[in-house]
Amino acid sequence: MSELKNDRFLKALARQPVDRTPIWMMRQAGRYLPEYRATRSQAGDFMSLCKNTELACEVTLQPLERYDLDAAILFSDILTIPDAMGLGLYFEEGEGPKFRKPVRTEADIEQLNVVDTASDLAYVTDAVAMIRRELHGRVPLIGFSGSPWTLATYMIEGQSSRDFARAKTMLYTQPELMHQLLDKLALSVIDYLNAQISAGAQVVQIFDTWGGALSHAAYLEFSLAYMQKIVSGLIKHAEGRDVPVILFTKGGGHWLEAMAETGCDALGLDWTVDIGAARARVGNQVALQGNMDPAVLRSDPARIEAEVATILQSFGTGSGHIFNLGHGITPDIDPAHAKVFIDAVHRFSAR
Amino acid sequence: MSELKNDRFLKALARQPVDRTPIWMMRQAGRYLPEYRATRSQAGDFMSLCKNTELACEVTLQPLERYDLDAAILFSDILTIPDAMGLGLYFEEGEGPKFRKPVRTEADIEQLNVVDTASDLAYVTDAVAMIRRELHGRVPLIGFSGSPWTLATYMIEGQSSRDFARAKTMLYTQPELMHQLLDKLALSVIDYLNAQISAGAQVVQIFDTWGGALSHAAYLEFSLAYMQKIVSGLIKHAEGRDVPVILFTKGGGHWLEAMAETGCDALGLDWTVDIGAARARVGNQVALQGNMDPAVLRSDPARIEAEVATILQSFGTGSGHIFNLGHGITPDIDPAHAKVFIDAVHRFSAR
Repeated sequence: MSELKNDRFLKALARQPVDRTPIWMMRQAGRYLPEYRATRSQAGDFMSLCKNTELACEVTLQPLERYDLDAAILFSDILTIPDAMGLGLYFEEGEGPKFRKPVRTEADIEQLNVVDTASDLAYVTDAVAMIRRELHGRVPLIGFSGSPWTLATYMIEGQSSRDFARAKTMLYTQPELMHQLLDKLALSVIDYLNAQISAGAQVVQIFDTWGGALSHAAYLEFSLAYMQKIVSGLIKHAEGRDVPVILFTKGGGHWLEAMAETGCDALGLDWTVDIGAARARVGNQVALQGNMDPAVLRSDPARIEAEVATILQSFGTGSGHIFNLGHGITPDIDPAHAKVFIDAVHRFSAR
Repeated sequence: MSELKNDRFLKALARQPVDRTPIWMMRQAGRYLPEYRATRSQAGDFMSLCKNTELACEVTLQPLERYDLDAAILFSDILTIPDAMGLGLYFEEGEGPKFRKPVRTEADIEQLNVVDTASDLAYVTDAVAMIRRELHGRVPLIGFSGSPWTLATYMIEGQSSRDFARAKTMLYTQPELMHQLLDKLALSVIDYLNAQISAGAQVVQIFDTWGGALSHAAYLEFSLAYMQKIVSGLIKHAEGRDVPVILFTKGGGHWLEAMAETGCDALGLDWTVDIGAARARVGNQVALQGNMDPAVLRSDPARIEAEVATILQSFGTGSGHIFNLGHGITPDIDPAHAKVFIDAVHRFSAR
């Protein structure tokens, strides 16, 4: 493997000093980029793009050509594991992901097999390996997975949901069954992320998109406990380095202390949290990643720069900050505004 | 007016001792009740029901006939003010509220008039007065309004939204224009709530359904500041009593300390907050209202009772707790489960 030329992101994750605050954007390889839309139209539908190693590699690298980013993130979907479990993931234009065979009954859950990444999800690890080669050490590569609870919500609902009626009914009415499902998912995620690490991922992030829909007690029992299990089961060192883990629970600002206790290296913050207050709560125990509202990118350059300055100032001096959006960049954003954002982070944070 | 027979709710709002924890449910007069659906089908569409004084009174009282509730809440919609401003509120079956004439431009906002409740919203104050008479002092009556920010999101988007793209673009790109809109709305809400109080509402609640979509700084500037203005502008005493104000920002758990500083009497909590931790943060400064996940009502009676016990225990001993759901009860709930919930609160909290 090529030597890493930009280790700003890894240093910040280790709470070590950096020359300027590193930045990447959730969903940085995405529909807001015309070059992404061109590649995507070549591939056909979204999952075909994910499953095509060359094209997945190509779109992963696209934002690095345009912007001065400090990390690349594997282009894939959070729902590859349930897809590999046989649920039949598909996307309808203009709608979220859906499953042809949602999981509803005890029998459905008992029949699910823990995923064997080597045989079921080789297209992902192939993409990781190719991206690592093609990066030539420019920046570190992030691998990722959905959290067990987040995967379970899609599997049970069969699609995204506003109130998670079916998933929560199972959680409250058949908690043992929910735990059985989450346990299979946690084992699958461990295998999946370890395979990504073995293939070359240098950092991994767990996306808990829907943990914030749970009550305090239910979050701890049904989402965080399984992320804890994953953190404990991951490969800790690879290629002579630590492999940091980032936990991101959207709407999880109440639970930062508990999240930090899992042994993860960093917490992703959505934009509702004041990052300075978050830092005061978790101290130097973990790094913090975030957290500008992606909606700010719809406004003008002056306002984008003002928001960047406010967040940098709120975090304060010292190490352990990775700049990011508080959620994925949306398709309607002008790519020039993303550049203003990224450049402002580097310029304003230069030590 | 008849003398108040059950003042448990008012006592808890004043952090005074009560014989048992008072309870009401957000959206307690609603579609989960067959008697509501019958009255609604008589009225025609949803707004016709809101505007029919007798029928609005009838549905307000329905849940009190079934359940041992400690408060009634005016049956109405949070969007009556923008409707009175001429935006043309309507509801399509199975969808949320929509406006025929959304507010998009500077000219749109300049043309909006502050609502004069006496002339524009007499149907609401008529309903309040009739409900008070028909209650015969059984329990106190809650009046309510949407918060300025929440009203503004619907007015700008023209409907409910996942990411508030237009509203946030205005907030970040034309903050002065957004402030102009919010100011007109705050003045309208003050007039509207004061008219409800004058007509007989004994408590008022401000529903800030979408404040939780904002960043920390934007929440303080664009939502809380206007709720503060409303709290300051409300009639403080009526009929020889204090008129308490409850602020409810869904997803606002980060900001409880700031909310308590407005001078309100109670904070509504959604279910993501641990109520014991919330109490530790705001002390005895305000009462706390909440906060069971409405999804728990889909499960079995034993589980509902267990959740009630957990929340009561988390709040702990002493006064200042009003039990409620963390959000409105949903149409799919079995009315028998609501009874289990309400009765459990009273039984488990009996001093």
